[in-house]
Amino acid sequence: MAVPPSTYPRRLLPLFLGLFQGALLLFFALFVTYDEPSAQAEDTNLVANQVYSTFPFFQDIQVMLVVGLGLLLTFLPRYGFSALTHNFLLLNFSMQWALVLQGLLHHFHHGQIHLDLHKLLISEFAAVTVLISVGAILGRASPCQLLVMATCEIPIYLASEWVIVTCLGVLDVGGTITIHVFSCYFGLGVSKALFRATQQPLHPKETPTTSSDLMSLVGTLILWVFWPSFVAVLCRPGNAQHRAILNTLLAMSASAITTVVASSLLERDGKLSPGHLQNGSLAGGVAIGAVADMAVPPVAALALGSLSAVVCVLGFRFLTPLLGRKLSLHDQCGIHNLHGLPGILGATASVVAVLVASKDSSGSQPSELSPAGGNASKVLEGQWGGRGVGGQALCQAAGLAVAVGASLLAGLLTGAALRLPCLARPPERLCFDDSLYFKIQDQAESPGPDSSAEEGALALKE
Amino acid sequence: MAVPPSTYPRRLLPLFLGLFQGALLLFFALFVTYDEPSAQAEDTNLVANQVYSTFPFFQDIQVMLVVGLGLLLTFLPRYGFSALTHNFLLLNFSMQWALVLQGLLHHFHHGQIHLDLHKLLISEFAAVTVLISVGAILGRASPCQLLVMATCEIPIYLASEWVIVTCLGVLDVGGTITIHVFSCYFGLGVSKALFRATQQPLHPKETPTTSSDLMSLVGTLILWVFWPSFVAVLCRPGNAQHRAILNTLLAMSASAITTVVASSLLERDGKLSPGHLQNGSLAGGVAIGAVADMAVPPVAALALGSLSAVVCVLGFRFLTPLLGRKLSLHDQCGIHNLHGLPGILGATASVVAVLVASKDSSGSQPSELSPAGGNASKVLEGQWGGRGVGGQALCQAAGLAVAVGASLLAGLLTGAALRLPCLARPPERLCFDDSLYFKIQDQAESPGPDSSAEEGALALKE
Amino acid sequence: MAVPPSTYPRRLLPLFLGLFQGALLLFFALFVTYDEPSAQAEDTNLVANQVYSTFPFFQDIQVMLVVGLGLLLTFLPRYGFSALTHNFLLLNFSMQWALVLQGLLHHFHHGQIHLDLHKLLISEFAAVTVLISVGAILGRASPCQLLVMATCEIPIYLASEWVIVTCLGVLDVGGTITIHVFSCYFGLGVSKALFRATQQPLHPKETPTTSSDLMSLVGTLILWVFWPSFVAVLCRPGNAQHRAILNTLLAMSASAITTVVASSLLERDGKLSPGHLQNGSLAGGVAIGAVADMAVPPVAALALGSLSAVVCVLGFRFLTPLLGRKLSLHDQCGIHNLHGLPGILGATASVVAVLVASKDSSGSQPSELSPAGGNASKVLEGQWGGRGVGGQALCQAAGLAVAVGASLLAGLLTGAALRLPCLARPPERLCFDDSLYFKIQDQAESPGPDSSAEEGALALKE
Repeated sequence: MAVPPSTYPRRLLPLFLGLFQGALLLFFALFVTYDEPSAQAEDTNLVANQVYSTFPFFQDIQVMLVVGLGLLLTFLPRYGFSALTHNFLLLNFSMQWALVLQGLLHHFHHGQIHLDLHKLLISEFAAVTVLISVGAILGRASPCQLLVMATCEIPIYLASEWVIVTCLGVLDVGGTITIHVFSCYFGLGVSKALFRATQQPLHPKETPTTSSDLMSLVGTLILWVFWPSFVAVLCRPGNAQHRAILNTLLAMSASAITTVVASSLLERDGKLSPGHLQNGSLAGGVAIGAVADMAVPPVAALALGSLSAVVCVLGFRFLTPLLGRKLSLHDQCGIHNLHGLPGILGATASVVAVLVASKDSSGSQPSELSPAGGNASKVLEGQWGGRGVGGQALCQAAGLAVAVGASLLAGLLTGAALRLPCLARPPERLCFDDSLYFKIQDQAESPGPDSSAEEGALALKE
Repeated sequence: MAVPPSTYPRRLLPLFLGLFQGALLLFFALFVTYDEPSAQAEDTNLVANQVYSTFPFFQDIQVMLVVGLGLLLTFLPRYGFSALTHNFLLLNFSMQWALVLQGLLHHFHHGQIHLDLHKLLISEFAAVTVLISVGAILGRASPCQLLVMATCEIPIYLASEWVIVTCLGVLDVGGTITIHVFSCYFGLGVSKALFRATQQPLHPKETPTTSSDLMSLVGTLILWVFWPSFVAVLCRPGNAQHRAILNTLLAMSASAITTVVASSLLERDGKLSPGHLQNGSLAGGVAIGAVADMAVPPVAALALGSLSAVVCVLGFRFLTPLLGRKLSLHDQCGIHNLHGLPGILGATASVVAVLVASKDSSGSQPSELSPAGGNASKVLEGQWGGRGVGGQALCQAAGLAVAVGASLLAGLLTGAALRLPCLARPPERLCFDDSLYFKIQDQAESPGPDSSAEEGALALKE
Repeated sequence: MAVPPSTYPRRLLPLFLGLFQGALLLFFALFVTYDEPSAQAEDTNLVANQVYSTFPFFQDIQVMLVVGLGLLLTFLPRYGFSALTHNFLLLNFSMQWALVLQGLLHHFHHGQIHLDLHKLLISEFAAVTVLISVGAILGRASPCQLLVMATCEIPIYLASEWVIVTCLGVLDVGGTITIHVFSCYFGLGVSKALFRATQQPLHPKETPTTSSDLMSLVGTLILWVFWPSFVAVLCRPGNAQHRAILNTLLAMSASAITTVVASSLLERDGKLSPGHLQNGSLAGGVAIGAVADMAVPPVAALALGSLSAVVCVLGFRFLTPLLGRKLSLHDQCGIHNLHGLPGILGATASVVAVLVASKDSSGSQPSELSPAGGNASKVLEGQWGGRGVGGQALCQAAGLAVAVGASLLAGLLTGAALRLPCLARPPERLCFDDSLYFKIQDQAESPGPDSSAEEGALALKE
């Protein structure tokens, strides 16, 4: 295991990515095209309106994933550059990979795949699962391991999403079940299989510093601000989307305040834990996804936000250490507390909401088809009508079960595959360290002849 | 006063917030609902258009308040985490509290309050006043004191806004008078009553470092970019909104350049002061609010932006030290220079603009009622028509007087209340210090057994 | 050259800027007005729709330029505050100056210039050229030199853009040729003439630190996210704009991954270079501009993105050192690698695309005139129809030649003018140092009586 940094293998990453880009080019050359441009003024107006109604949401989500989530992961003080870069790389890789798979699976008409903004958005949602799962093994896995994980996770996600949404007809516009629960248990499965029974010791570079905690909090705030766009982008325009935005805002606002209450009460000295704030404030957004566009009353959104923040903070305080001790389960970023527990809570809430909601006030009824809804999600096809309230509630529960079961199993298998020696898991001593992957500040590690002048300059700066 | 950190009381904060969240849930359960969903395609389209026209502005404002303003306050190098968190907490608390009060005051029809995005936006505007006022006492007040301040300020703001806008018919689409002037003098009143005659000595942790100044400047730039959304969101769609955006852009651009000129001329060695840049660049946005949608010529926006930057920089250079010496008035972030002086300037400009503008080119004339204006501000009801130019000018001046008077008085009373010992004002030694409230970098303060390895690791990083 | 900081001349900057603001006010007072407000409900709707379709793009671009580009330039560890401030100052100055010149040149009807959001946007595009060119001399030039450079560059850009777009009819909706290629060679010309034959030695303050590299990467990510808005804002609404967004997204995604491949393969130890990541990820956005709205297949966008990332990384690895050694050409930020090479690649791609594209599927054909296109770019007047495919291809090539030639020549002349002693180029010892221009952290440089306490406090923080 004691590989010196100079002999750490680094050729697999460019090889893997290079081959993938080549295959992608080939695939696009053969099969992908844009929608035929049309010269009708009417169609032009329609396309323009679709762009204006989708693109701002899309940009918000891009900011969340690239900047917000990236910064959130920089809480590891010496691993910030890696966290930001790996997040960015995985997003792009997974999005392209999802585009290919979705093209093959769903959109293969007449030998051509017609690309549009909506398909990119769906692929981006698939990529989110990878970015979440990574949180379980962040800092102890190599980029190659992460890419292989992404390669496995995307098709499994697509299959699981197809079963849950298309077959079971589960209502989950914000991805609570299909994205958050799935990716959490997939990540935990990978972590378990990758690290096996060895409990990971606390690494000296693992403790956040004030400035890394601050950057991470900025990431949280960016995610917090744009989360409503993530939940509402696939809703039907009109009342359902309006409601989804409001519900998400209420849930996240309640989460923010409840996190402070819970964190403050749980710590012996009453001081707030930065980790609780960075995660708990977002728990409401995770939980609200499954019911955001349903006709739940505003108080339900508030209550769900508060409850999810409480379970998130409790998870950090008690469950994560317990899982570490009892199951040797390593969860670096606490994804189980931010995505797993609030996700299960949200799924449960959707069962209750379906049972309680009277049919006529539901946001998913077919009569609310928007005339401008052509570009909106096809997720909510009105299957509920033929199924009855009880059946729909059962389906929601079944969807949760599928998400947990499939992801855990697939995660364990994937994690076992990541143990392949060629994937170059970094030795313990070099974990959580940017300098293994980046030409960063070499002068600090191997002071050259000008080091004294350099140090003088740096000393002045500090 | 010399409370050791270990005995600093911390149970009041979760108690207060917990009770508030409980009461909020109760209130929402009893009274708040969403607008009835309608199955009409026409209405769906209307709602969709309202969402598309308001939501991007709303998101811009959220970024401003949560990320931009939060970062702006991180100029205190050891208080960044607190500044960001307290800003975030106060925004959520004040917004919810304003939602409750507004629900009770204005929207109580048929026993139900119908929540929509516009009402959330109005509550967010109310919360802004708290975030501004905090600037006067940042770093020396406990979170409990800040929450009590918010609890007092929101109802007083709502009353003052009602008097100024509804009773007096003051035109102030960007909140120059109702938000900026009000919150500035409220904050100064609180500061005066809280700290009494004791002039606050310069605290060793108060001096910004290069990196805290840089973060703060990033916050300024974020605020600068999104400010036009803040000013224009409540304008009538169409020409008035277009004009408000352009006027704000011009005013802020002029502010940015004039700040450099003024700061550079005022300092003896010609070096620019980071504090001037961080604040002066935004002064134009404060001042333009009252006249942004009026038919003022573009040159007026430029001139107002330049002038406000000059008074802001002059305020920092001369007035703040003077007020500190003569009145023992403590203004930590210089809110009087960024919000008070430019606000008064903007209010004066609105008097002049009303006097100068000929009636037929005014942006507030009733004939410009937009057909899509249902979701836009009801602020500008065409009362001017019946009042005459002189009357309207008098009203603008009266509005300013009300804002200054009411806020100062209420601020003084609130500040006196904040002296209650149970609110746990931090002892001087622990002011401006994150470690009083957060579990941050304890290892630096109480080096454990692994401190030497830790220090080695950190030394390598630096 | 050995000017001590205390005698460094600093009065020219406020004088220059102050006079400019005065002249601007005069110009606006005499000539600039808003469009006449119209009381027609129909027109109001039209204006409202134009605002809603343009303003979100405009805000995205503002974030890119003010926050994203500003942060990207903070990779110089002790020059971050200057980089951010000078970028901000130059943006505002150049935008106002472009507004004046464009007003004089193009929009002088009936003695009045009618200001609208579209004209501001066009001026902002002009300002971008300055912000790019600055990259060649960042850190070694004084603010006065930068302002004089902006003063010269804006009119030359406007003339060059007029020749390229209006006279030659070059298709370049994303500014690949008119903005990126032009500003790159202008900047290199300035650098060459300013520093002459003296090769710039490596400055001790020039080496990025981990934290400055991290901030810079955040800037890259912000630029990466919002780049599609920059490319697509001036496209015709409808299919052309939709295609431009998709093409840009694909190109940038391919760039991101290919940069990792190329950087990893080129470095001997396989570690990634932060500089490559910070720049290569954006190369696709530069290259795609000229063909973004054309009817190119998606694979072309991917290929262009990959190729441009490769040339960018190769440029950093081989060309920049070579140019430094052979031509003594100094390129601080590597603008030739990010804007020059990918720009030329994109221009070449536009020649190929014109030759390959069949006339009937082109995005620029006159029949696709959008009914809502009044506010969109007038750039693409359908001159192609009368010219034939070969002619248009020739024009694209000629446009590239004009951009390179005119900018190099003008840059060399401008650079010579910057050698005027009164412009106060900073002495070598004080280059890359915020403390020359800002009152920053004086305590570190001249420890006062309380320095020991201060140092203790700071030591605790680190």
